[in-house]
Amino acid sequence: MADLAITRLNSQDADFDARFAQLVTWDAGDMAQIEKTVADIIADVRAHGDAAVADYTQRFDKIDVHALGLEFTEADIDAAIAEVPPAELEALKEAAERIRAYHQWQLPQLGNHEFRDAAGAMLGQRVAPLQRAGLYVPGGRASYPSSVLMNAIPAKVAGVEELIMAVPTPNGEVNPLILAAARIAGVDRAFRMGGAQAVAAMAYGTQSVPGVDKIVGPGNIYVAMAKRQVFGQVGIDMIAGPSEILVVADNQNDPRWIAADLLSQAEHDPDAQSILITDDADFADRVEAAIEAHLLSLSRTEICLQSLNERGGVIIVPDLEEGARIASRVAPEHLELAVADPRALLPLIRNAGAIFLGRYTPEAVGDYVAGPNHVLPTNGTARFSNPLGVHDFITRTSLIDCSPEALRCIGPGASVLAASEGLTAHQLSVDLRLREAD
Amino acid sequence: MADLAITRLNSQDADFDARFAQLVTWDAGDMAQIEKTVADIIADVRAHGDAAVADYTQRFDKIDVHALGLEFTEADIDAAIAEVPPAELEALKEAAERIRAYHQWQLPQLGNHEFRDAAGAMLGQRVAPLQRAGLYVPGGRASYPSSVLMNAIPAKVAGVEELIMAVPTPNGEVNPLILAAARIAGVDRAFRMGGAQAVAAMAYGTQSVPGVDKIVGPGNIYVAMAKRQVFGQVGIDMIAGPSEILVVADNQNDPRWIAADLLSQAEHDPDAQSILITDDADFADRVEAAIEAHLLSLSRTEICLQSLNERGGVIIVPDLEEGARIASRVAPEHLELAVADPRALLPLIRNAGAIFLGRYTPEAVGDYVAGPNHVLPTNGTARFSNPLGVHDFITRTSLIDCSPEALRCIGPGASVLAASEGLTAHQLSVDLRLREAD
Repeated sequence: MADLAITRLNSQDADFDARFAQLVTWDAGDMAQIEKTVADIIADVRAHGDAAVADYTQRFDKIDVHALGLEFTEADIDAAIAEVPPAELEALKEAAERIRAYHQWQLPQLGNHEFRDAAGAMLGQRVAPLQRAGLYVPGGRASYPSSVLMNAIPAKVAGVEELIMAVPTPNGEVNPLILAAARIAGVDRAFRMGGAQAVAAMAYGTQSVPGVDKIVGPGNIYVAMAKRQVFGQVGIDMIAGPSEILVVADNQNDPRWIAADLLSQAEHDPDAQSILITDDADFADRVEAAIEAHLLSLSRTEICLQSLNERGGVIIVPDLEEGARIASRVAPEHLELAVADPRALLPLIRNAGAIFLGRYTPEAVGDYVAGPNHVLPTNGTARFSNPLGVHDFITRTSLIDCSPEALRCIGPGASVLAASEGLTAHQLSVDLRLREAD
Repeated sequence: MADLAITRLNSQDADFDARFAQLVTWDAGDMAQIEKTVADIIADVRAHGDAAVADYTQRFDKIDVHALGLEFTEADIDAAIAEVPPAELEALKEAAERIRAYHQWQLPQLGNHEFRDAAGAMLGQRVAPLQRAGLYVPGGRASYPSSVLMNAIPAKVAGVEELIMAVPTPNGEVNPLILAAARIAGVDRAFRMGGAQAVAAMAYGTQSVPGVDKIVGPGNIYVAMAKRQVFGQVGIDMIAGPSEILVVADNQNDPRWIAADLLSQAEHDPDAQSILITDDADFADRVEAAIEAHLLSLSRTEICLQSLNERGGVIIVPDLEEGARIASRVAPEHLELAVADPRALLPLIRNAGAIFLGRYTPEAVGDYVAGPNHVLPTNGTARFSNPLGVHDFITRTSLIDCSPEALRCIGPGASVLAASEGLTAHQLSVDLRLREAD
């Protein structure tokens, strides 16, 4: 096992800003080849539908969907659920209940909202769910039932009519918890397909797969690229970068707890980023020692070490307020405030995906059972984007309804502005009605 | 002047679906060369900041910003406003008031919203404005003061701290109404720059231009490509396609009114799309005759003809309900329901950017003074995206706060699910605290 060697910075050092920027900068690298490969797959699926999906599935997943069927049957799903240990099924249901409750709390009032203004115009907006959404679920190691709950439940709470799911089944294998989670979350139809071909099928529709209005869910680089390329044809959720956690901790924490929290990001992926910000260098040493101790008992030691050594960081600050300000600059996906009075630091945090307050709120509770979504903006995008939520499955349509009197009141201004922009047909469309309305 | 020759379809024809799909399909075409050009400009601005912006501005706009200053001074803006005819200034202010009122009505409650759930966990979300936003305003013919109001006011209503504007000044010329609208809308700083270099400057920041969190506003193909390329570094609004109007009209309308409405889209751009859906072919003939009559008096005859002949359409339907269903399939940017009882058709419309109800609500009132935003999803994207609004300038951050008791209640489920996903560090971070909490 390699040695643990986490980059350590001090916010008071002259070169801090430069080294800090280097630490938190993530570049996905050149995608030209992947872009081309994915574009070809999408074009093929658009042109040949099911046949193309079946060919790619045969090639990449080594299964014959002609024989097996592209869609999972109810019997397939029943059989999968029967394999799931009762305790895990119970935990999934409990998590689903809590996630549903939070997203119901978050749900804005649907329907038409209008008001009559001083001019007598009825103005407003319609708030309505998307008709159809598609959920991508990765196969293999990154196949997480919790992600199925987190992506599917907000869609169903929002009232999406039909939610379909795509999950690859390499060599015919699927994690039964994925199908169990889909049933619990209310997924309407599930398909044995993955990669760019699955994204293309959901975006454009095939003989068997209905085209959707929006595609959400995590995936590998090919899936992410495919989502980018079909964006416009359908909506997509954000393209997630590697997962991140930033922990602001004082020296009154149990170092083993903070060490476990940092490791809980590191174990996701060698590119994942775990950063500790503390006002006590000795405490940082104790946390690093605890990390080394934990590593002996964890299942993903090499991934953790690679992640911590290549992307991890410890930042020593003169005080926790300075720590909070630095955290806000990072706009981390996950931010733990493991301090005596987290509410005192909260006003200093402008940007973060999710904030975990206090010593008893490890990020892992948010990943599974707390209720708020675990799909969060990464790589600093919390500055302008949001956790996945019901808002991602709802659209607004503006409503404008003028009576002759209302038009008489507001029309002349429109006419003047249209003329000032040289748009004479705009002006004419108002003036004709004003003449009649007079 | 070329003849008017609008494509006419009948929803009852056997080949309707295919011809209809052909009518409404828009393809922006191959962008490879533009992509490369824009990538080079962005890289140059990232590397050389103001100097690069000044060079491109010299080259493309023929002005020396070293001499003139990259930023407009208050005096520049005062001077511009002094040039604006009082009636136009008054109309701008009136429009701004109405746009402000609508977006204030639309504004969700800002701040921290939390609730304590049955397990005793405090859950919620913080709703807060973006810190800094950038507004791009085109120069030349497409330089519309109404767009300044529509993009800037929602940002300021949402509470964005600093809103900056970029507008190119070819040969030093700027439409004084643009600067007047910026002042009225509350734009904080304005810069003489355009194109991909302006987008890059706002995305990455330069010595003179502050980096922003999100960039909104219309622009030419280079600006749109630049926004695509900086997305991720900053947020962007939707990339708009050509403007569209779809009018569902019965034969009780004055054909001249409907003709003017169709022309009001056509005059924007040869690629703009105007579609009439009616249940009376004779009425459609009268509308086409009225279009030809109007064309003699309008300022953009050639643009209108090109747009109507290449992308315009008339669709004859057996009844208006069928018309409404077809309209919803298009998910048009602008939808007029010019019928006796528009509210009866409303439930049939699932997808549209903005719906204009009744005979006295021409789309042009929505472009300028009604209040709802005129930045709307185009090219069918209303199926999954929204009118520009305060929501585009606000972020949500999840808040999770567990007491020891709450963790005792929900932690065990998280531990089970973490174990089921093979994430032992996640499990450890919960279990360590559970042991202590017991």
